[in-house]
Amino acid sequence: MAPDIRTLSLKKPVDVAEYLFRRLHEVGIRAVHGVPGDYNLVALDYVEPAGLYWVGNVNELNAGYAADGYARVKGISALVTTFGVGELSALNAVAGAYSEYVPIVHIVGTPSTSSQQQGALLHHTLGNGNYSTFSEMSKPLACTSVYLTDPSDIASQIDHAIRECYVQSRPVYMTLPQDMVQQKIEGERLQTPLDLSFPRNDEEKEDYVVDVVLRALEAAQRAIILVDACAIRHRALSETHALVQQSGLPTFVAPMGKSAVDESLPNYCGVYAGDGSVPEVRVRVESADLVLTIGAIKSDFNTAGFTYRVNQLNTIDFHSRYIRVKYAEYPGVRMNGVLRKVVERLEKSSLCIQAGPSPHNNPSEASDGRFGANTITHAWFWPALGHWLRQNDIVITETGTSNFGIWETRFPANVTLVSQVLWGSIGYATAACQGAASAAKDLEGADRRTILFTGDGSFQLTCQEVSTMLRNGLNPIIFVICNAGFTIERSIHGETAGYNDVQPWRYKDLVPAFGAQEGQYKQYTVKTKGEMQALFNDEQFAEAKCLRFVEMFMPKEDMPVGLKVTAGLAER
Amino acid sequence: MAPDIRTLSLKKPVDVAEYLFRRLHEVGIRAVHGVPGDYNLVALDYVEPAGLYWVGNVNELNAGYAADGYARVKGISALVTTFGVGELSALNAVAGAYSEYVPIVHIVGTPSTSSQQQGALLHHTLGNGNYSTFSEMSKPLACTSVYLTDPSDIASQIDHAIRECYVQSRPVYMTLPQDMVQQKIEGERLQTPLDLSFPRNDEEKEDYVVDVVLRALEAAQRAIILVDACAIRHRALSETHALVQQSGLPTFVAPMGKSAVDESLPNYCGVYAGDGSVPEVRVRVESADLVLTIGAIKSDFNTAGFTYRVNQLNTIDFHSRYIRVKYAEYPGVRMNGVLRKVVERLEKSSLCIQAGPSPHNNPSEASDGRFGANTITHAWFWPALGHWLRQNDIVITETGTSNFGIWETRFPANVTLVSQVLWGSIGYATAACQGAASAAKDLEGADRRTILFTGDGSFQLTCQEVSTMLRNGLNPIIFVICNAGFTIERSIHGETAGYNDVQPWRYKDLVPAFGAQEGQYKQYTVKTKGEMQALFNDEQFAEAKCLRFVEMFMPKEDMPVGLKVTAGLAER
Repeated sequence: MAPDIRTLSLKKPVDVAEYLFRRLHEVGIRAVHGVPGDYNLVALDYVEPAGLYWVGNVNELNAGYAADGYARVKGISALVTTFGVGELSALNAVAGAYSEYVPIVHIVGTPSTSSQQQGALLHHTLGNGNYSTFSEMSKPLACTSVYLTDPSDIASQIDHAIRECYVQSRPVYMTLPQDMVQQKIEGERLQTPLDLSFPRNDEEKEDYVVDVVLRALEAAQRAIILVDACAIRHRALSETHALVQQSGLPTFVAPMGKSAVDESLPNYCGVYAGDGSVPEVRVRVESADLVLTIGAIKSDFNTAGFTYRVNQLNTIDFHSRYIRVKYAEYPGVRMNGVLRKVVERLEKSSLCIQAGPSPHNNPSEASDGRFGANTITHAWFWPALGHWLRQNDIVITETGTSNFGIWETRFPANVTLVSQVLWGSIGYATAACQGAASAAKDLEGADRRTILFTGDGSFQLTCQEVSTMLRNGLNPIIFVICNAGFTIERSIHGETAGYNDVQPWRYKDLVPAFGAQEGQYKQYTVKTKGEMQALFNDEQFAEAKCLRFVEMFMPKEDMPVGLKVTAGLAER
Repeated sequence: MAPDIRTLSLKKPVDVAEYLFRRLHEVGIRAVHGVPGDYNLVALDYVEPAGLYWVGNVNELNAGYAADGYARVKGISALVTTFGVGELSALNAVAGAYSEYVPIVHIVGTPSTSSQQQGALLHHTLGNGNYSTFSEMSKPLACTSVYLTDPSDIASQIDHAIRECYVQSRPVYMTLPQDMVQQKIEGERLQTPLDLSFPRNDEEKEDYVVDVVLRALEAAQRAIILVDACAIRHRALSETHALVQQSGLPTFVAPMGKSAVDESLPNYCGVYAGDGSVPEVRVRVESADLVLTIGAIKSDFNTAGFTYRVNQLNTIDFHSRYIRVKYAEYPGVRMNGVLRKVVERLEKSSLCIQAGPSPHNNPSEASDGRFGANTITHAWFWPALGHWLRQNDIVITETGTSNFGIWETRFPANVTLVSQVLWGSIGYATAACQGAASAAKDLEGADRRTILFTGDGSFQLTCQEVSTMLRNGLNPIIFVICNAGFTIERSIHGETAGYNDVQPWRYKDLVPAFGAQEGQYKQYTVKTKGEMQALFNDEQFAEAKCLRFVEMFMPKEDMPVGLKVTAGLAER
């Protein structure tokens, strides 16, 4: 086939798939998550030549969760699925990423534009000739959707989508029809890096807001900082760190904001979650006369059932699209620039600092009579874990007891916590662990451990992602809390109901069944505090260059305080 | 709380959830598939009192596939998920059911109507207060959607939804808000059974069409019958059987129609799939001067890549919503009534019967040089299987080599084949097997074996549904074709590409890892024709009352003829 005139007019013709994957490489992606399918196969040939690698997940939901975990550690990620069957399987994961502001470029290989125009009765269709149903379904779960059907437009569509994904920090949806994969487009654009900068705030407006904030800070006697999810998700962590360090103000995190702040700082004061907080935290936060919230998401599970007791008249909220001072909103002002200037202009001497509590990792040895003294309880485990964790660890917790238990762990510096508190889809954590571990591997010069905490019930949903970890030579540490089912559901309703039970598995036997070779893994079973402590003391366990899988037995009826409070209220 | 006036006016007040589950029981459902979630827990308390049982699937996609498998065997099924996270995970399965006309009542437990009205920032939401996003996403995948928000309307909504599900043979979507579960509604309606009858055809119109059909039949010299999926899905099997038996006409099935016809009949002639057919079949069908198609779906995988060579001028198509004679359409005439009258009025003596081929299960011993003489090839296996299958078996095949290989197996009488040829989602078969096996158990007085054929790549997506089989005490026979990855994808593109490889698992070790107890399962590994034949001869294997798991090794490069033909064309 002779090149057409359009191709001849290109200065540096490149194939669409090459352009796409080179752009993904440019923004920092190395791993491409997904599952092969006949409508995306040819595109996959372009992954490796672009300097990326194919993860090869076990199914699309897992791939989506993993892409989410990858993006939370590496900043952005890519997911490739096939039309209909593949993309729909991933929707729950994509919805979670949308809900929690996680940037995933979701690329869907579709039938050719000509098949679509004919309404051909192809497999993976609803049999009605309608080729737009699935892209319509994905629309509310993407900040931008692009359909690559016209080669003359494709390069700018790709650039636009990747920028929006990064800047809005949400999934974008992109269809790549089979007959577009190898179309030629202008490669010279690749010389110009994508602009990933946030839109600048209007300077006068920004200065005005900064001034309001500074005056409020100087007037306050008991100011505090409360850091939440969007500080992480909207890339305001360096500004937040600077404020926390420069101001010296007592600093708390909401559950979804946990790990946003260096918890080894002396002014780190713990997790605030309304009635789910420890008393010292609750008292200090609720008696503040000024609360600077950074990136707050006041969802039920993030506030222990809407039990925040912070007066809006004492609050300044920093967000990605606006700042709110008491009830005054300043739309169109992004927190990043405001925080930067606040830090620059802050005179620490003019601040009144009234210190907050200092959380310690004090494992509770108390037995409430229901459990033996040596039984591993949540009140014991999570603080004990705090002593074992190390700087730079990446910790993943599941929606369930782990997401609430982790409130009780004070982290070393530079720990990253990955959890899905708002969307709360069980099964997420195991697959996200794969993505997070891949991201850790892809971070240049880093040597970070990836550590998963999940429950037996949740693990069952996505267990086979352990296979993907093995396939990719990843070495996470996996703790499966064996407590005979869905404890979080029991806390809400049906404490002893059969529907909250799960089939009892031999969890650790799955690792060799998933093809782990000798030397590629280690297995552990811990049933008592003593065994757990011994494991924590085992340097081999802590440092081994292999996948470590721990069955950790805890009582079916035990749960962290935070969950008890949240669930008690959630049942209303 | 005192009962309100509305409740007092009810003759036999029953709770909404009780009403719902009693209606599901009435239409023949016994198993309720799904996963517990906090928005559906209270409803689950009503499952057992209504005479149903909770399956407790391992995740929602699997639950959806299983509900599909159940409905294909038992006639209709129920799926319970939770708002957002649960329902979205099931969408791919529901889409498959929509595409292939499988009736599933999908019940989604949602937050209370008051939370929804307030736009509360609850977990499992997108965080934007929009509570209709997910139901909108499900709308194109349901023939009817009902939102149970007004107790005075709920009973009729439930009745309407179940009827539509059954009659249209497609999924319906139903939201059940937490605060509606225990509302009182009129139970007296339960005395009147649901009307599940099809709308009657207009008699004059029907007679007219019957007459046209009979005249065409009497005029034809080389008439044949070609039965396809919708004969099964639109409940026209008894009419089809009667026509096939009474007429004695040579009868073929399309791949999606396989098992619709008693293949032990002398006038059963094999599978017609265009160029994917064996030559005798192709010649006989394509030389027919009249083809009666019953419930045809002419999709790519059902026609070996659109290679039907049947002239529309020689065709009468029977459908659920219309009959087409040559190019004349008769809308609003359902096939069931027409077929019944054609059979009644047919004079066999007036028909010209020219017999078709008689397919035999002849395992090919030939080696094409690539494989050793004792290697299990597709050309050998599928016909050999035909000798081992028994009357009443339920056979599930996966989208992959199995879906094409099964064309070469002639079934005994009353076999049911479950496969998903149009939607074609890999992973379907393993989970559908759980549903089919549950349905087999729930069929009164039946003793039917459930037998799964899947590939290693596909098995990995949904492997943990084996756990649900164990949990429910089901005893299917599972064949996993170990051929090192996605052979169907290799056939299309990337024959040796890494993305078509999968992590090598120790498949059979999963069964005990999923908690199978001694005596609850048997494992087998077969690598040669001799070993396979020995297994086929093993009465213990055939009859054991436990789960049987077979790792069957086949060459990575081998595939059934039907797949070769379809894929070769699919690559165009």
